[in-house]
Amino acid sequence: MPQSSPALFDEVCQYVRQSSLLASVSAVLEWDERTKMPAAGAEHRADQTTLLSGMIHQRWTDEAFVAKVSELAAGPLVEGVDGETAVTIRRLKRLVDKKTKLPRSLVEELARTAVLGQSAWEQARRENNFAHFQPWLAKTFELKGQQAEALGYKQSPYDALLDDYEPEELTANVGRVLADLREQLVGLVAAIRASGRQPDRSLLSRNYPIDVQESFGKEAAAAGGFDFTRGRLDVTAHPFCTTLGPHDCRITTRYDEHFFNAAFFGILHEAGHGIYEQGLPPDRFGMPLGEAISLGIHESQSRMWENLVGRSRAFWQHFYPTAQKRFRAALGGTSLDAFYFAINDVRPSLIRVEADEATYNLHILIRFEMEQALLSGDLSAADAPAAWNDKYRQYLGIAPDRDAEGVLQDVHWSAGLVGYFPTYTLGNLYAAQFFATADQELGGLHAQFARGEFQPLRDWLREKIHRHGQHYSAAELVKQVTGRELSSTPLLAQLRAKYGEIYGI
Amino acid sequence: MPQSSPALFDEVCQYVRQSSLLASVSAVLEWDERTKMPAAGAEHRADQTTLLSGMIHQRWTDEAFVAKVSELAAGPLVEGVDGETAVTIRRLKRLVDKKTKLPRSLVEELARTAVLGQSAWEQARRENNFAHFQPWLAKTFELKGQQAEALGYKQSPYDALLDDYEPEELTANVGRVLADLREQLVGLVAAIRASGRQPDRSLLSRNYPIDVQESFGKEAAAAGGFDFTRGRLDVTAHPFCTTLGPHDCRITTRYDEHFFNAAFFGILHEAGHGIYEQGLPPDRFGMPLGEAISLGIHESQSRMWENLVGRSRAFWQHFYPTAQKRFRAALGGTSLDAFYFAINDVRPSLIRVEADEATYNLHILIRFEMEQALLSGDLSAADAPAAWNDKYRQYLGIAPDRDAEGVLQDVHWSAGLVGYFPTYTLGNLYAAQFFATADQELGGLHAQFARGEFQPLRDWLREKIHRHGQHYSAAELVKQVTGRELSSTPLLAQLRAKYGEIYGI
Repeated sequence: MPQSSPALFDEVCQYVRQSSLLASVSAVLEWDERTKMPAAGAEHRADQTTLLSGMIHQRWTDEAFVAKVSELAAGPLVEGVDGETAVTIRRLKRLVDKKTKLPRSLVEELARTAVLGQSAWEQARRENNFAHFQPWLAKTFELKGQQAEALGYKQSPYDALLDDYEPEELTANVGRVLADLREQLVGLVAAIRASGRQPDRSLLSRNYPIDVQESFGKEAAAAGGFDFTRGRLDVTAHPFCTTLGPHDCRITTRYDEHFFNAAFFGILHEAGHGIYEQGLPPDRFGMPLGEAISLGIHESQSRMWENLVGRSRAFWQHFYPTAQKRFRAALGGTSLDAFYFAINDVRPSLIRVEADEATYNLHILIRFEMEQALLSGDLSAADAPAAWNDKYRQYLGIAPDRDAEGVLQDVHWSAGLVGYFPTYTLGNLYAAQFFATADQELGGLHAQFARGEFQPLRDWLREKIHRHGQHYSAAELVKQVTGRELSSTPLLAQLRAKYGEIYGI
Repeated sequence: MPQSSPALFDEVCQYVRQSSLLASVSAVLEWDERTKMPAAGAEHRADQTTLLSGMIHQRWTDEAFVAKVSELAAGPLVEGVDGETAVTIRRLKRLVDKKTKLPRSLVEELARTAVLGQSAWEQARRENNFAHFQPWLAKTFELKGQQAEALGYKQSPYDALLDDYEPEELTANVGRVLADLREQLVGLVAAIRASGRQPDRSLLSRNYPIDVQESFGKEAAAAGGFDFTRGRLDVTAHPFCTTLGPHDCRITTRYDEHFFNAAFFGILHEAGHGIYEQGLPPDRFGMPLGEAISLGIHESQSRMWENLVGRSRAFWQHFYPTAQKRFRAALGGTSLDAFYFAINDVRPSLIRVEADEATYNLHILIRFEMEQALLSGDLSAADAPAAWNDKYRQYLGIAPDRDAEGVLQDVHWSAGLVGYFPTYTLGNLYAAQFFATADQELGGLHAQFARGEFQPLRDWLREKIHRHGQHYSAAELVKQVTGRELSSTPLLAQLRAKYGEIYGI
C-alpha cells in the first residue's frame, strides 16, 4: 500500500532530524578541537570526525531516502504552495540533488586535493614560493569546473559554486552590484587618503588586560542580545561561531593584550552570528526552517553588530565611559573623539583580515574577479600572482612585495572554497540595506544606541530575518524586508556619511 | 569459502575499534556536558547521547558480529594460548555475552527504573522522606536480581553484579577480605578516638585563592606524572576523569576558596586515574588490551596518588615549602606538623564522600553488606533505614538523625549501580598492597618523595600495571605484581603505621 504524502513527509522529517542530530555531534567535536583539545589529541579527533562525516554523508545519499524526497518533491504537498511543508520539501530536494549529483570519484578527488593542496599552500606561504602551490591552484579550479558542470547552473559555471554558500544567487547579479560598489569605493578610499587626516592608532596598542577585555566584550555582546544562558565565549586561534544544539551556540575569540580591536570587535562579530543562530526557531532545529539561509545573510548579521553598531559613534557614546573605567590606564586620558577615530581608521593595506570597513570590500572584489577568471580559464594559475598584484595596485594603490602577503594569503582556494569570498561583501551590502530599513522603521537607531538600547534592533532582526530560517531565499528576504532588490546604494551611503564626517570629505 | 581465523580476527578487531571510536565521541559529549555546556543545552545533549548509545549498543549486539566473536572463541586462536590474540578474544566474548544475555525487556525496565528511581531519590533526599524512595529501592533490587539470574554466576547472584565493575571477582573473596578489614578497622578507629589528640582543622579553611589552588594542583599532578600535553584540567560539579582518545585524558575538580582539601586531593585523585589511563598502550586504544581492567584497579591508582603519596609526610616535606610560598596568608605561619596532622585528621562522620582515609572503608563495608542482604531478600527495602543506622552505630559509633544523611545519601542504588561500592575499598586494598611491593622493590619510596622524586613510582606502576590493559584480571595482576593474593594486611599495616605515629597509639 503506498504511503500517504503526509505520512511520508513525517518520516522524511524524522530521518533528516536524526541526520542533523549526528551533524550537531560533529559540531561538538569541532568546537572542542578548536578551543580545548590538547594538540596530542588531533589524530584521534580526525578519526572521530571522519567516522561521523561518513555516516552523515551516507544518510544523505541513502537511496531509499533520496527516493522518498523525490517522491515528495513530485507530489501534491509541494505544488504551488508556499507553506512550511512545501518550502521544506523544496529545500530538502535541493540538498539531496546537490549531494547526489556529484560522482563519487569527483568528491573523493576534491577531498584529496583539498588536503594535499592545503599542505602545499602552507609550505608555499611559509617559504614565499608560489611555484610550490601553482599546480594545486590549477588543479583545484579544474576540479571546481568539473563540479560546476556536474551540478549544473543557470548562466555561468560560477553560479553552481556560489550556490554552495549563497543558494539560488546568480553570479551576474552579484557581479553587477559589486561592480557598482567598486567604482564608487575606489574613489571614496582615494578621497580618504587625500584628506591627509590620520588618527592616533597607537592608543589601541596600549595595555588592555585580557581578563578585562573578556568581561567587557561579554558585556557588549550581551547588550546586543547574545544570550549567554544559551551560549558561551571561549578562546581559539581562528575565531568562529558554531551551533551545537538549539540552545547551545558558542562564540570564540583571541586576545592580544596590546591591541584592543582584535578581541572586542571579533567578539561583536561572532556575537552577531550567534544572535542570528539563537534567533532561528529552536523547534525547527536541524530542518531547513531552523537553519540560516546563506553565508551572506549570516555575515550581514555579524557585520551589522561589529561595524554598523559596534563602530558607530552612538555605540561609544553609551559604552565609552565604561571602557574608560575598565581600561583606566589605557583610555582614562583619551577623548571619545580620538578613540572613535582610531577604531575607524581607513587605510589601504595588503592583508584582507586586517582591513578596515571600507577597504575590506576591495579585497573581496579582487578575489571574486580572479575566481571567475581562473574558473573560466581567462586567467591561468601561473599568471595569478601578477594579476593579484595588478588589481591591488589598481583598486588600493599598493601591491605586495611577497606572494605570501599576496595571492598566497588566504586559505580558501587551497581548501577548495571557491565562490565563498563574495559572501563577505554580500554580508556588508545586506547589512547596510537592512540597517537603513530598520533605522527608518524603528525611528533613529543611533539615538537608541546612545541610550544603551540595542534590544529594538535585535527584536526587529529576529522578527524580520532570524525566525524565518530558510523560508525565503536571501534575495527574497532582502526584497521582502527592505522593499527593494539588493543594491550598493545603502552601503555606499553609510560609508560616505560616516567617513565624510570623520575625514571631512 | 570459510574465512581463516586470523582474517576473521582482524575483521572483528576493526569492527570493535570502530565501536570504540563511536564510544569515544560519546565521551567528548559527556565531558563537555559536565564542564562547559550551558545548562540550556541539556535536552539536545541528551538526544545526542541517546542516539550514539543506541548506535553503539546496536553494534555490540549485531547478530553477525556476535556470531563472528563466538566463532573466534570456539576456534583455534583462543585455545590454551595466553598471547594477545587469545586474551582479546576471551575478553570480547565476555563482553558480547553480557550484552546479549539480558532480555531487551529487562534492559529497558532497568533503564526506565534508573531514570524514575533517581528522580524519586532526589525528591526523597530533598524532603528527607525515605518512604518516597522505598518502592524504587525494592524494585531496583528486584530487577538487579533478575539481571543476575539472566547473566548467570558462579556462587552467588551478587557475583554477576560485581562482575560489571570488577570482572571475574567473586563476592566470597571480597567478603572475606573486607570482613578481616572490618574487624581490625573498627578497633583502630576506636583507638584513634580514644587517643584524645585532635588537629587544628580550621587551618584548612583559611583563604586559598582559587587560581593558586589551580596552578599548585597542576604542579603536583604533573610531578606525579600526569602529562598535561596529553590531557587537561577543568572545573565541574562532581569531579571525574575521562578519556577522549589515546592521547587525550581529561581530569576535573571543583574549588572551594575556603577549603584546601577538596580541590587539591581531588586533583591528585583524578590525576591518579589519569596517569593510569595515560599509561595504557595507545596503539591498543578501544581494544581490551588498551583499557583498564577494573574499577578496583582504577581506584587503586587514584587512591595511591591521593593518599599514599599525597597525604604522606614525605610528600609534604618536598611540597610544603612551595605551598607556604604560594598560600602565604594561609600557611606562612603554620608548621609542617600542624598541616600534616590537619590533612590526616581521622574522625567518624556520617557522609561517605567526606570521610577520611581510615573510616572511609567502614562506610563502604556498610553498603556492601546491605547490598547483599537487599539482593538476597534477607533485608527488605522497608527495613533499610534502620539497618543502615544500626551498622553506623556498630562500626562508627555514630548514627544519622535524618535518612537524607543516612540511607538516602548516595546516588548509586537509585541509578541501578549495585555491586559498585566495594570497588572503592578494593581500590584502597590494592593500592596498599601494590605500594608495599613498590616500596620494597624501589627501595624507600618516602625518601624519594621527600626529594621530589615521583617518577620511579610512576614508571613502576606503568611497567607493572598500566601497560597490561586487560591482559590479566585484577586478581591475576595482584598476584603477579605482589606475589600474593589480595589481603587486608598491607592496608591495615599502612594505616596502623601512619596513625600510630600521628595519634601516638
